[in-house]
Amino acid sequence: MAIEIPRAVRWHDDAVRIIDQTLLPGEYREIDLTDVEDVVEAIQALRVRGAPAIGIAGALGLVASLKPHLILPQAEFQDRLLQNARRIREARPTAVNLAWAIDRLLSLRNQRPGASNEEAWEDLRSQAIAILDEDREMCRRIGEHGVALLREGATVLTHCNAGALATGGMGTALAPVYVAAERGLKVRVLADETRPLLQGSRLTAWEMDRAGIEVMILTDNMAAFAMKELDVDLVIVGADRIAANGDVANKIGTYGLAIAAHHHGVPFYVAAPSSTFDFELASGDEIPIESRGPEEVRSGFGRRTAPENVEAYNPAFDVTPAGLIAGIITEEGIFEPGDLSVLYEMKTRS
Amino acid sequence: MAIEIPRAVRWHDDAVRIIDQTLLPGEYREIDLTDVEDVVEAIQALRVRGAPAIGIAGALGLVASLKPHLILPQAEFQDRLLQNARRIREARPTAVNLAWAIDRLLSLRNQRPGASNEEAWEDLRSQAIAILDEDREMCRRIGEHGVALLREGATVLTHCNAGALATGGMGTALAPVYVAAERGLKVRVLADETRPLLQGSRLTAWEMDRAGIEVMILTDNMAAFAMKELDVDLVIVGADRIAANGDVANKIGTYGLAIAAHHHGVPFYVAAPSSTFDFELASGDEIPIESRGPEEVRSGFGRRTAPENVEAYNPAFDVTPAGLIAGIITEEGIFEPGDLSVLYEMKTRS
Repeated sequence: MAIEIPRAVRWHDDAVRIIDQTLLPGEYREIDLTDVEDVVEAIQALRVRGAPAIGIAGALGLVASLKPHLILPQAEFQDRLLQNARRIREARPTAVNLAWAIDRLLSLRNQRPGASNEEAWEDLRSQAIAILDEDREMCRRIGEHGVALLREGATVLTHCNAGALATGGMGTALAPVYVAAERGLKVRVLADETRPLLQGSRLTAWEMDRAGIEVMILTDNMAAFAMKELDVDLVIVGADRIAANGDVANKIGTYGLAIAAHHHGVPFYVAAPSSTFDFELASGDEIPIESRGPEEVRSGFGRRTAPENVEAYNPAFDVTPAGLIAGIITEEGIFEPGDLSVLYEMKTRS
Repeated sequence: MAIEIPRAVRWHDDAVRIIDQTLLPGEYREIDLTDVEDVVEAIQALRVRGAPAIGIAGALGLVASLKPHLILPQAEFQDRLLQNARRIREARPTAVNLAWAIDRLLSLRNQRPGASNEEAWEDLRSQAIAILDEDREMCRRIGEHGVALLREGATVLTHCNAGALATGGMGTALAPVYVAAERGLKVRVLADETRPLLQGSRLTAWEMDRAGIEVMILTDNMAAFAMKELDVDLVIVGADRIAANGDVANKIGTYGLAIAAHHHGVPFYVAAPSSTFDFELASGDEIPIESRGPEEVRSGFGRRTAPENVEAYNPAFDVTPAGLIAGIITEEGIFEPGDLSVLYEMKTRS
């Protein structure tokens, strides 16, 4: 069955075309970016978000931004490449995928001595599109491994948005759901709204609804009661960083959800590409947790919802210990947290 | 130490004076109600909310609404009393305290045959003020029992608003905190914002801040991580209804919070007057759970935050099983859920 999966970021007519996610769910608008400042603004204003999608948008954006400069002398063209790369790379310093994607393009420099500007640009473009294509393929493989966990009529609870809107392809946590839908399996998604930024109700609900997949939103504090009342079969969430022992950093709220799932005997899965693993970190205790400003908690949605100067707790992520996780769905297969050494061997061998 | 405790509802100059809670935290405004339709509107629009406060506002409002009618013939005055009572009683049919308070006033009828309108009205006024005074006293006794749980420097996590704004006095869950502050104990409150209606960030944060008690708000999904990171000593929440076995119905999110507290070994307490107990219900399974419309979840804060037609889960309450509860703080003392038969004996003997 053909399922409509949104394309958060792609290459179109020598521009990077993104869905402006700040307008969702109210309005669907695609915008084409070619100027370096527009690319930076789109990343900083969260018009494109989700670590993989940001990396792809940065790479494609860098390529698009260079097109008007092909007429420059070669040395000046190379200078412009470095300048634009630096500018985009710093748009969101915490997004590792962005730095990684830009560095991958820069590594092409000097690989073909004497190449014309046009030839150099074509190499960059091919590489940026390869980054996108690899991400799409990686998402699909996560989906194909994860779909084995879904029976006909299954209810999947998820948190935040680790869907198509966060990647170049069909997402990570939502990839098994898309593959199930393609295969004609009926699956229902419960989407935590995910305060403070509401990626669940704004984005996950939107892309599931658009794909014709049954979705119901709930406030984050309803998840435990939903597990008791609504026959939740499993939880699948994304990940921002995974330590060697299987501890997972992900959007704030993931930890409480994992505790609730454990209490109800609901299996808790994490879906993430193997690039999310940081084998240099022994455990989640070593993962730095970004704290954000109080205003997101004090006055979301354009309206003050708390006294002006009251203190607000606002960690952007939390850490879920490996002991609460049934399995990690990667493009290489599903691994129990205790078996990550197998994945480590695979990745270091390759 | 004198602590400023807001008075959600009181008798003032032959009117019922309430704090308009729909304007909080942005604006503090007291309004005086004397007309029956204004009383009904204030209750329905949640200008006054919290079961005990609604009961008191209804009773005082009924008395105020009758003042202009003292000049009527006695039979017509009694008709007016019944009409106004019926109108107010139905303002929020699910608030048991409202029906209970109005019925308590109506039970005065015919107790003093031949009484003048003025005498009958004075009796009603005395009874309504007695309802208020009893509630204030009950809150204080809950606070005095509960303060024994708080050490100097304690951090208390709470959910929703079971504070002064919900009662005629210093609240239920927040009463031990107020008593601690009066005694010069330094206590910190963490307030779940409590989606969808944000009573925690709007009301609990406001009244704690105003009383000079340290308070920090957090989104509901941060509570579990806060227990791991912020040295939470105990949780205290209110209750809407408590079954004979100690299962507690309270604002949605209480159940997940209790599971997280249990996981972290944080004692979980419920504070409620003994009138909250419904000994006719064997367990929480028999407590009916009100489901509210989807719009509160789909578009809080005056802005659409989810696709228009997407389904939304919205139970107003959940049930926390007795096994997750360390104790229930009542005006008669603190009871373990297993020891409620002692309270039952006390209440049925009296």
